[in-house]
Amino acid sequence: MQITEIIRKKRDGESLSEAELNFFVDGFTGGKIPDYQASALLMAIFINRLSVDETFWLLQAMLNSGEVVDLSMIPGIKVDKHSTGGVGDKTSLILAPVCAAAGVPVPMISGRGLGHSGGTLDKLESIPGFRVDLDLDHYKRLVGESGLCLIGQTKEIAPADKKIYALRDVTHTVENKSLISASIMSKKLAEGIDALVLDVKTGQGAFMKTQDDAKELAEMMISIGTKMGKQVRALITDMNQPLGSHVGNALEVVEVVELLQGNCTPEQQDCLELSLLLAAHMIVLGGKADDLDQAREIAESTIRDLSAFAKFKEIVAKQFGDPSALEDLNKLPTADHVETLTAETDGYLGMLDALAIGKGCVLLGAGRKTLEDVIDPAVGVIVRKKLGNPVTTGDPLLEIHYNDANKLKEALPLFQSAIKIDPDPVEPPSLIKK
Amino acid sequence: MQITEIIRKKRDGESLSEAELNFFVDGFTGGKIPDYQASALLMAIFINRLSVDETFWLLQAMLNSGEVVDLSMIPGIKVDKHSTGGVGDKTSLILAPVCAAAGVPVPMISGRGLGHSGGTLDKLESIPGFRVDLDLDHYKRLVGESGLCLIGQTKEIAPADKKIYALRDVTHTVENKSLISASIMSKKLAEGIDALVLDVKTGQGAFMKTQDDAKELAEMMISIGTKMGKQVRALITDMNQPLGSHVGNALEVVEVVELLQGNCTPEQQDCLELSLLLAAHMIVLGGKADDLDQAREIAESTIRDLSAFAKFKEIVAKQFGDPSALEDLNKLPTADHVETLTAETDGYLGMLDALAIGKGCVLLGAGRKTLEDVIDPAVGVIVRKKLGNPVTTGDPLLEIHYNDANKLKEALPLFQSAIKIDPDPVEPPSLIKK
Repeated sequence: MQITEIIRKKRDGESLSEAELNFFVDGFTGGKIPDYQASALLMAIFINRLSVDETFWLLQAMLNSGEVVDLSMIPGIKVDKHSTGGVGDKTSLILAPVCAAAGVPVPMISGRGLGHSGGTLDKLESIPGFRVDLDLDHYKRLVGESGLCLIGQTKEIAPADKKIYALRDVTHTVENKSLISASIMSKKLAEGIDALVLDVKTGQGAFMKTQDDAKELAEMMISIGTKMGKQVRALITDMNQPLGSHVGNALEVVEVVELLQGNCTPEQQDCLELSLLLAAHMIVLGGKADDLDQAREIAESTIRDLSAFAKFKEIVAKQFGDPSALEDLNKLPTADHVETLTAETDGYLGMLDALAIGKGCVLLGAGRKTLEDVIDPAVGVIVRKKLGNPVTTGDPLLEIHYNDANKLKEALPLFQSAIKIDPDPVEPPSLIKK
Repeated sequence: MQITEIIRKKRDGESLSEAELNFFVDGFTGGKIPDYQASALLMAIFINRLSVDETFWLLQAMLNSGEVVDLSMIPGIKVDKHSTGGVGDKTSLILAPVCAAAGVPVPMISGRGLGHSGGTLDKLESIPGFRVDLDLDHYKRLVGESGLCLIGQTKEIAPADKKIYALRDVTHTVENKSLISASIMSKKLAEGIDALVLDVKTGQGAFMKTQDDAKELAEMMISIGTKMGKQVRALITDMNQPLGSHVGNALEVVEVVELLQGNCTPEQQDCLELSLLLAAHMIVLGGKADDLDQAREIAESTIRDLSAFAKFKEIVAKQFGDPSALEDLNKLPTADHVETLTAETDGYLGMLDALAIGKGCVLLGAGRKTLEDVIDPAVGVIVRKKLGNPVTTGDPLLEIHYNDANKLKEALPLFQSAIKIDPDPVEPPSLIKK
């Protein structure tokens, strides 16, 4: 088999076989196929696409490039959630303890912030002492003991994905549904899960800008996940405005604690709602409820009786974090300064651009512009009005938490451009699209 | 300007600007853009194509990556010919001395054999002592003194093309009309020519298999050449059977000498005809005749009066070759053995597959399978019947000149498969398609 012939086939829009996709993934991961041939093939794949079968074979090859964790000795149906990335999306930190408290084991291997969207690992690391770099044995033990564990991708997990992703990143071959699906699923299936709930974001602040794109991506992931013998469900949800009220690493942990303690402001309603809905799907998949209504009730009860909050404190402690920081939120990193943007006119909030707010937070230091950047866990924003809310001149709209006046100066125009007040009532977007 | 954004634009089928194509060519040639980004862009270009303007800008950037020879101090309109490559195509060696003898300077920088097709440089080097590695000053001097010079691409000529071609070769992005056109024209225009005649081959033995492909390629080269202020003409010619009778390096020099001496067998008629036609176009472009008929008469006269043969001997001597080898052909390399394929039945020659014969000659040692292979100048075939000729059982069809019995064994099935005798009369293909 020759890589040049594989390139030619996909260049001419022909289908690749399982053996050919294996040959590519093995050869590239093993260093036998050079970057320049891999990038030519990835571009041909990007433009001429992969079928469901080809995507499935690619996923399989990528999954088998590394270790697939065996959690079969842990009782129960292991369920995880994956989101395609958004702004203010801290649902993982809520639904993981909720499901674990409901008896559904959640083995969760997450990523870091990517572009304007935040990452679960970065949020967790804002809790003093919290470690996401546990090895796979440690991970297995905690899933068994506590019903959840939240770590980062180890070198054993899908090394092919790491290498392919790095090349896609510098050759503009990222936004392809097959490549995205195979990448996500290869990491998620390596965790040792039995079932997966996908939260595919759509809108301004999402990687999939249109609902059709989001639907196609969701269908591809469901198809290839099902072929792998896993139960996969997907929700398509709104990412035009940030989810909940807090954006930024420690700030999002604050919101998580507030919600897990049963305190929910109107601006946080969407975040709580989505977390409970995703958790309910996971509880059904985990076999702990017969239907969504029953599952939803179970999820809510873990918040009411604080068992989810207790579970969160438990896993923070087990992953070397300081659980007292979740009781006394002043122990979390806090920014030195707050600048508040207020309404300059009466009306209704007509725009709260998640993309601009996400990019603004990156400029404040909440995310990375290059891989080497060190994150400032304290900075971010708190949203005080959401889309459709009536506003009166002088109302606080956005609290900007910052440490560096120069960075604020850089980010301020983005935040200002993110907000628009309309004179007429504005219909808020529906959270759940499908 | 960022290469990733340039990749994205072409990936999405958008047009690239002159500045963007310059940025790519300069950056890649200068080593600032890595191979893997260049190959992703080349694949996007291959699939989504370049417009005439984009191809022109690419050509310009590639041309300007190196030296453009200035021949303006040499009087006359400098004209060259380029062929897209065929089997048995020795027209360059005929028309160059014909045109030079007719007073049209021919500055010719040629290539080596590529795949199954022969290369002018390899043919010339079968003449004892002949050197194709003269530097550009030497080249200029000989064009001035003798009206022609036949050398290989120097490192100063279009270095961008060398680097881009090497990458295209290993990423299956060769057969794209814009990339081919820019590559050919960047080398040809660097020679210092004022006008160019293109011989675009079509058929079994050509890189362009269909006449439509050949026409599109010809149109692209004419368009971008004209934009560069050059006079460009193109002929589309047949390459289903080998051109003339001899295939192989020294063997083709033998045929050239025979034709330049005014001796032409029926099997060589097509080669002489095409050489005279191309030369006639060059003589018109070179301003030495008002129309093709007059130019044709001039070309024929240089053969009749042996002035073209004298010119050939002159340039062979000036390029350190032994001109006496052209008088006494035994001084050229000859193969030790000859194996003759004869007709096994009566009928008409219905197939004389140029591709199979070209590949067979490569196996005998007339061409290279890898860049490191050393050519055997003596081996090749002599065609004794051409398409449409009546044949009788026992007639010699193909004389195989070989030195290595193992190589003959390898090549023989190809030669056998190249020939088919039909019971009914066969219409020979027309040599000139357009």
